[in-house]
Amino acid sequence: MPNVKPLHLVAGGAGFIGSHLCDALLQRGDQVLCVDNLQSAWPGNLEHLRRQPNFEFVAGDISAPLPAIITRRTAGLTHIWNLACAASPPRYQADPEHTMLTNVVGTDQLLRLAEAAGARFLLTSTSEVYGDPEQHPQVEGYRGSVNCTGPRACYDEGKRAAEALSFDFARLGRADVRVARIFNTYGPHMQADDGRIVSNVINQMLGGEAVTVYGDGSQTRSLCYVADMVDGLIRLMDGDTVRDVPVNLGNPDERSILEIVATVALILGVEPNIRFTPLPQDDPLRRRPDVERAKTLLGWDPVTPIEAGLARTVEWFREVRGQTGLMALSIAAE
Amino acid sequence: MPNVKPLHLVAGGAGFIGSHLCDALLQRGDQVLCVDNLQSAWPGNLEHLRRQPNFEFVAGDISAPLPAIITRRTAGLTHIWNLACAASPPRYQADPEHTMLTNVVGTDQLLRLAEAAGARFLLTSTSEVYGDPEQHPQVEGYRGSVNCTGPRACYDEGKRAAEALSFDFARLGRADVRVARIFNTYGPHMQADDGRIVSNVINQMLGGEAVTVYGDGSQTRSLCYVADMVDGLIRLMDGDTVRDVPVNLGNPDERSILEIVATVALILGVEPNIRFTPLPQDDPLRRRPDVERAKTLLGWDPVTPIEAGLARTVEWFREVRGQTGLMALSIAAE
Repeated sequence: MPNVKPLHLVAGGAGFIGSHLCDALLQRGDQVLCVDNLQSAWPGNLEHLRRQPNFEFVAGDISAPLPAIITRRTAGLTHIWNLACAASPPRYQADPEHTMLTNVVGTDQLLRLAEAAGARFLLTSTSEVYGDPEQHPQVEGYRGSVNCTGPRACYDEGKRAAEALSFDFARLGRADVRVARIFNTYGPHMQADDGRIVSNVINQMLGGEAVTVYGDGSQTRSLCYVADMVDGLIRLMDGDTVRDVPVNLGNPDERSILEIVATVALILGVEPNIRFTPLPQDDPLRRRPDVERAKTLLGWDPVTPIEAGLARTVEWFREVRGQTGLMALSIAAE
Repeated sequence: MPNVKPLHLVAGGAGFIGSHLCDALLQRGDQVLCVDNLQSAWPGNLEHLRRQPNFEFVAGDISAPLPAIITRRTAGLTHIWNLACAASPPRYQADPEHTMLTNVVGTDQLLRLAEAAGARFLLTSTSEVYGDPEQHPQVEGYRGSVNCTGPRACYDEGKRAAEALSFDFARLGRADVRVARIFNTYGPHMQADDGRIVSNVINQMLGGEAVTVYGDGSQTRSLCYVADMVDGLIRLMDGDTVRDVPVNLGNPDERSILEIVATVALILGVEPNIRFTPLPQDDPLRRRPDVERAKTLLGWDPVTPIEAGLARTVEWFREVRGQTGLMALSIAAE
């Protein structure tokens, strides 16, 4: 069927990374069917996407039975992407049962859909499967150090369970499966109030507030710019070199929280005013991806330096904050 | 309501440990409603229980919507026990998706039922949450070493996810939760063909076959006699000393596979004929519970020496093998 355009189902396609992925797929001429419950999407993402002719939006929650508008189109689906799940701790902890079921029931339903459609399936897993790791950087074979009884477990264990399900479908030949373990990612389309380091720091500084730093700020994050991440996800889905194993996607450039604060301050030309608060339970102290597998097998390398990526993100937040109503809408939608 | 008998819902009550638990609850005069899909129950367990007046059986699978015969009785439920899930690798790997959903969807449904009923809830988790552990003995705070992409993950990660859900219900005050991490248990009512060490060894020897030993037989198991296990579970459910934390239940008496084979051979008075075969993927090499928490907080101690427990188990398998038809039925039900 050389003249039929690929049809991608993108679960979570209105979210931060999902909306960039939809954009990239549309730009190459593919069709996108996006399903999202809008739990943690910045509303502007959807407005922007809805103006594109090959884009369709379905409001739905993958932990509930899939909407008929999706299942009716099973035969036409060529690619299924699971990016659905709130990913920032305050959001995913607000309803931990829903977080778990989104990852397990949601992933199971999408895997069954991929099986029925003969579509390729990609799960966006997470560096959180490594928990608070005892080895650095983290290679894919590292089994992790996750507290399965703690407040982060609904997300961490939900994703681990989603991986287990995905690899079982692969082992049984039920679906053609890819699993990406996404490390911290930042860029335009993040939510201002999602409680994550980059959005927190930028928005607190833009608002003239003190910047919240958990612990002493010496804990590190490795931050990947969203365009690099989407490039990695598409290479993984398109390629045949990484199957039956998970692959880390992230930027190994490790920075302390205080360095990230200082970089944003430099971009804004302000002096940061820091408010130190206690570290939340089970917050990882350090995390850095080993991306050798992605480099070797996907030819992928995150190319955006953090200074450039943060500058673009600051610029975007500035624009958005200038648009009356949109930010208020985003905050009201919480 | 001093004259109303407690009503226990026992999911998996027709299974190995479940049937002993039902017996113990009935013996103290309580009422038992047992739900089981009979996926891995020895049929004789149910015949025996059905002769008891306070026992009711409902055929059902907790990964599917709960039967109305159960939900109708929500208000009367005082205790909900989740022992449902095939626990031996060949059984739980036969349908890994079902194993995962039994643990996650099944546990979620029973937690919601406990919430609606105001009933106390107990999850039987497993030593498998520690995976192939790097520390011995395993204390409850150890985060484990589980391969979340391997063929055992459907069970191990399913149970870890079930724990995460249970503790979230506890943290939110939605249910009064207990979590036991059960280590290897053996005794009457095991299935002859469940692929586990004790049933394998006894039945192969009773049948005059060579005994299958995976690897070189130097890997260890700590085996708890089922009566001790049930005593621990009941203390945990009844007491108020262990809440919001998991508790190991198992016998710390660690023996190598070859020692277990030799003990059974001694009981039977035969010379073992061993067939060594390769170790399956992700098979734990060693596992031993630290049971200080159970000793201190529940006053529990596994009291049955392995020689006595194995002798009773051999006796039971001998009787069962003598009953024409029953064993054949068990094998046909697979």
